[in-house]
Amino acid sequence: MRILIAGVDGYLGWSLANYLATRGHEVGGMDNFFRRRWVDEVGGWSAIPIASMRRRRSAFADTHGGRLNFWRGDLRNYRFVESVLEEFEPDAVVHLGECPSAPYSMIDVHHAAFVQINNVEGTLNLLFAIRDICPRAHLLKLGTMGEYGTPNMDIPEGFFEIEFRGRRERLPFPRQAGSWYHQSKVHGSNNIMLACKLWGLSATDVMQGVVFGTRIDEIMAGDERLRTRFDFDQCFGTVVNRFCAQAVIGHPLTPFGRGRQKRGFLPLRDSMQCLTLALENPPRAGEYRVFNQFEGVYDVTQLANLVQKVAGEIGLDVEIKNIDNPRLEMEEHYYHPDHQHLLDLGYRPTENVEGEIRVMLDDLILHRERIEARKEVLMPDIRWTSPARARKARRKRARKSFAA
Amino acid sequence: MRILIAGVDGYLGWSLANYLATRGHEVGGMDNFFRRRWVDEVGGWSAIPIASMRRRRSAFADTHGGRLNFWRGDLRNYRFVESVLEEFEPDAVVHLGECPSAPYSMIDVHHAAFVQINNVEGTLNLLFAIRDICPRAHLLKLGTMGEYGTPNMDIPEGFFEIEFRGRRERLPFPRQAGSWYHQSKVHGSNNIMLACKLWGLSATDVMQGVVFGTRIDEIMAGDERLRTRFDFDQCFGTVVNRFCAQAVIGHPLTPFGRGRQKRGFLPLRDSMQCLTLALENPPRAGEYRVFNQFEGVYDVTQLANLVQKVAGEIGLDVEIKNIDNPRLEMEEHYYHPDHQHLLDLGYRPTENVEGEIRVMLDDLILHRERIEARKEVLMPDIRWTSPARARKARRKRARKSFAA
Repeated sequence: MRILIAGVDGYLGWSLANYLATRGHEVGGMDNFFRRRWVDEVGGWSAIPIASMRRRRSAFADTHGGRLNFWRGDLRNYRFVESVLEEFEPDAVVHLGECPSAPYSMIDVHHAAFVQINNVEGTLNLLFAIRDICPRAHLLKLGTMGEYGTPNMDIPEGFFEIEFRGRRERLPFPRQAGSWYHQSKVHGSNNIMLACKLWGLSATDVMQGVVFGTRIDEIMAGDERLRTRFDFDQCFGTVVNRFCAQAVIGHPLTPFGRGRQKRGFLPLRDSMQCLTLALENPPRAGEYRVFNQFEGVYDVTQLANLVQKVAGEIGLDVEIKNIDNPRLEMEEHYYHPDHQHLLDLGYRPTENVEGEIRVMLDDLILHRERIEARKEVLMPDIRWTSPARARKARRKRARKSFAA
Repeated sequence: MRILIAGVDGYLGWSLANYLATRGHEVGGMDNFFRRRWVDEVGGWSAIPIASMRRRRSAFADTHGGRLNFWRGDLRNYRFVESVLEEFEPDAVVHLGECPSAPYSMIDVHHAAFVQINNVEGTLNLLFAIRDICPRAHLLKLGTMGEYGTPNMDIPEGFFEIEFRGRRERLPFPRQAGSWYHQSKVHGSNNIMLACKLWGLSATDVMQGVVFGTRIDEIMAGDERLRTRFDFDQCFGTVVNRFCAQAVIGHPLTPFGRGRQKRGFLPLRDSMQCLTLALENPPRAGEYRVFNQFEGVYDVTQLANLVQKVAGEIGLDVEIKNIDNPRLEMEEHYYHPDHQHLLDLGYRPTENVEGEIRVMLDDLILHRERIEARKEVLMPDIRWTSPARARKARRKRARKSFAA
């Protein structure tokens, strides 16, 4: 298949390009390198050094034989999106080209608006360009399990059939996302569902859990130029990744609040396996389908304990220190999301989470000094509520009216 | 109360400013005059001539005594929004400052993106500015009944309690909006719900039905400078308003498709009554509440028949001619939305829809020549599906590959 990846320079995008190449697909990619810029903006960097796209493409050709088709540009530019689709004529478009950070979207109004506009506009442009240029292409869109929030009932995969006042109907499961970023994904899901209805497009909307991992296989680990990024800052580092980064520099692991938040998690290699299953088993024409994509449900303390245990086995002595929760979220709650659709397609979960963490720690130890050098970004200071800025503004006004 | 209206130059905004002034409230308004520009862009104009904001403000002062505080600017400019809130210190903010047209959003990708970005960003800016400057102010936001779509079950007001796999929970009622514009309202609702949860803001999210009418009372009708706009083009003219415009120039009334689409409708004066009830009975701190706002449910053919009948009584002989439906919508369906919350607050529906239509026809007959002069905008050519542009692009590509 000819598969175009929007956001090919990112954590998942770069891994997927390589994974799909090993499966014999022809891969194209688009990126505007915003991820590198955002991580830089918040003071972080990738713990594992990553190559420039030029070097990445040479390594890709050396390893996989075929070239990686690449277009540098912004999804918010419709003419750009259109021209890439015209040139590459993809059978499938994987949309990983969004800003993926909840904390980043909570910095202030400008970041909130940027994340929502960037994500909404990029998705709309892709939908229209697919409609006009390759209407039979399958859109595989990355959403997040966070779109659902944590309702006090089971979470189906996108839709459920319910009875209300004596009538039964299949309805979209209500979304209750908890950050501007997560809401941007809800906006995207709603827009994609509409596009499928209006124009008969085919889409898979992936409600993905929290991904962790430093690599997908030995091929990518073998050539330094093929390594994917690994962020550990408060904005772009996901929780298990951050625990592992903390462990290798002897920093306490820092679950938020009581640490009993439950989420769906999956290793990077499982994410690749699942996305590929979705691509190789596309939806019917006009179908909008939703996959909940994760290996299993864990609470944050369970994962901290696991990282602590594995770290201990390789001689790293780390403590666990719960810190004030910067987010507004339930810290103890019911959480039972379905995730059957991918299993039905043949998804074989890694299950050995300990083994995965061991690989991560081994990989990260080699880059200990890079984590140490930026360790201040490990601790969160972006808060969901009682924003410091608002308090400051109120004090300023109070001073002004006192002076007047 | 000090009430700030975003979008004060619009059909509802200008009416509301005057209505609130007669109730003794102090009114402020913001506008960037985009509505005038959009209607011009699609070839329309207001059937009833409207004055400039300068003349509107003089008339406002002459009629109501107090002045109308006015700021010209764009809600997408956060600094502007912040400065207006700092200066006016509102008790309530009525958000009518969005692009309100489904067909306009369906023109092409640029219009779709513009409508969603404009509406999402304006609402985000208002939410953040309220948080930082006047966190106790009540945000009254105009949504639309179209957010719900037409599910095959009763539609509650925003939330419902349901059972799923043995657990009961109160959840937001799922939204299934049918245009990029309607989706922008869903995005807004989701964002407002989150802001209330995060920061304890208070908001009323009004799912409004389709409004019709030329005036709210004799005061506004008495001074020509106080008249509100009345659009009849395919984008900004709502269905009953367009039927009345068609009737006065002897054009057939044109229900779409089979004309059995049911919607909630309400006269302009009812909309003013309801919005004022919401303002004078604000939600609790931190409360996000949803009102379904309409007088009654009618199908489009019923309303066409009513307009035809009333027109006949004043000597206007008009026929009804169903036309191809440019929209993608169910033309016969179940439709039972609740609308109890406003009745509980004391809303007294007009009920006399015939009387309302009579007033409209009398008002519009005086401006027959203005409708006649732009009558080509009465017929729709913006289509929800099989876009002409996409077909053209496909043909062009086919020719290209044939030539090659």
